[in-house]
Amino acid sequence: MLTLGIDGGATAAKWALRDDSGKIKEGVSEPIDGHTYRPESKARLVKVLNEIKAAAGNEKISAIYAGITGTSSDPENNGEIIEIFQSIFGEIEIEIVIDMVLGYRAHFDFGEGIFLYAGTGSIATYLTETGKVVRAGGWGYLLGDEGAGYWIGREAIRRTLTAIDTKSAITKGSLEAEVLDFTKCKDWNGIKEFVYSKDRSAIAALAKPVISLAKKGELAAQDILAIAADYLIDLVLQIESVVAKPDLPVIFAGGITEAGDFIIDLINIGIGREVSLSKVRIANRAAEIAAENLA
Amino acid sequence: MLTLGIDGGATAAKWALRDDSGKIKEGVSEPIDGHTYRPESKARLVKVLNEIKAAAGNEKISAIYAGITGTSSDPENNGEIIEIFQSIFGEIEIEIVIDMVLGYRAHFDFGEGIFLYAGTGSIATYLTETGKVVRAGGWGYLLGDEGAGYWIGREAIRRTLTAIDTKSAITKGSLEAEVLDFTKCKDWNGIKEFVYSKDRSAIAALAKPVISLAKKGELAAQDILAIAADYLIDLVLQIESVVAKPDLPVIFAGGITEAGDFIIDLINIGIGREVSLSKVRIANRAAEIAAENLA
Repeated sequence: MLTLGIDGGATAAKWALRDDSGKIKEGVSEPIDGHTYRPESKARLVKVLNEIKAAAGNEKISAIYAGITGTSSDPENNGEIIEIFQSIFGEIEIEIVIDMVLGYRAHFDFGEGIFLYAGTGSIATYLTETGKVVRAGGWGYLLGDEGAGYWIGREAIRRTLTAIDTKSAITKGSLEAEVLDFTKCKDWNGIKEFVYSKDRSAIAALAKPVISLAKKGELAAQDILAIAADYLIDLVLQIESVVAKPDLPVIFAGGITEAGDFIIDLINIGIGREVSLSKVRIANRAAEIAAENLA
Repeated sequence: MLTLGIDGGATAAKWALRDDSGKIKEGVSEPIDGHTYRPESKARLVKVLNEIKAAAGNEKISAIYAGITGTSSDPENNGEIIEIFQSIFGEIEIEIVIDMVLGYRAHFDFGEGIFLYAGTGSIATYLTETGKVVRAGGWGYLLGDEGAGYWIGREAIRRTLTAIDTKSAITKGSLEAEVLDFTKCKDWNGIKEFVYSKDRSAIAALAKPVISLAKKGELAAQDILAIAADYLIDLVLQIESVVAKPDLPVIFAGGITEAGDFIIDLINIGIGREVSLSKVRIANRAAEIAAENLA
């Protein structure tokens, strides 16, 4: 008897199968999302679920816990996606939650702590004792997501444009030189085309060189990460003010954690206590939750 | 003998015909742009130009000066759009410039002043004595355009989301109540759909009620406009620092000028001198420039 956990995000879907002894089979597939009204999203979901079923072989999957980007926090709205799961796995126990709820559940019991996430976007989440979602940030790239990858890339580009507009010298090894190198641009026309023709993941990818530069001591890159840390601190403090529980443990996950001590130290100081970095393999934990629900 | 001026923007194209006595025939058509590689843009441009030609009747148009959004500041890149003009008007004198250069030329001679524009987006422009473009801002909605309509709408939405996230009371007559009313939203899910499914003009349209509220004394709306004024002041100061000419006259145009004294007073104080509001009918002025070029 197997339980299945899925961590379905915009970059990839990770999945894990767990049997009674806890043994695990796992894999990474194409990204999946909850926009089942889009034919391409639906087709990809069916394909990925069939691949996972094939990986399970002859053994029956008896419960599924899946966190999927773009689903609703209201289970009533996820009827169609559950039907797709059931058309492949049968009428078994299936729980679909949004990715940030899975992230929370993978790290905390209800009401236990604050989950801070900064990947391409940023959000802080708290689940109350009754499972109600309290969130701060997570407004997406047009309205917010400050402190996360897209925002960091955008800030780096803005500083480069300011240098170009004000005809400042761009020295080797500087943030501005790195942006021009990374985007393969020479001027405003090139950057304009880069930003407005590419997917926003291309801008978020700039966070990686910014983090490297900050670690090497480049001051503008460090300044961007310091402002990012302030925004991430604000997300946590906002949750604390809403739930009126000071000193909840905070776990930090997502690609921006690659900045390591540089950003963690700033966040720790801002929040006034130690913030832990996530070490959980989320799909495996989701398979465990599916097994717990079954017990 | 007629000269034609066109002010081609993203909302509409205004045009004016001028004869030797200065008499004017004018009109407003659908928007046109310089993205001639897009079949729909090309078809619309051909249609609008034929309409203008028909309006000229039997009289020959002998020179055209047109400012069109999305064209290049480098005339070499506008070959295709000029060919389209020539296929309709013949091998006459045609000058195509980007919209902001037309905005400048409609108000100033080369090197004479700074043209500050805030509509959906924001930009400040200066043309040197030899016609070289110096610009500040104008980076578009993903990177900048601070202080203009899209930015003002976005700020109003962000404040509303903060009130929702922090479970603050939203009182009648407040900025937040106005945003919910204007967008017909009740909560984050509604706002998310509004922002990510609509065109950015829908967000920029929020600037109008924000300006109204500010005039009525609503503090949050006034705060947004005060920050907008700061950003617009920065654009002007940035141009001044690049061209190293203090105290150039500044003319302010675009939809945000509807905020009137509320924003103008702030800008005047920030820049330290009187900023004039644009009173020029730009398409008419473009037809005049076409006639001057012909002389």
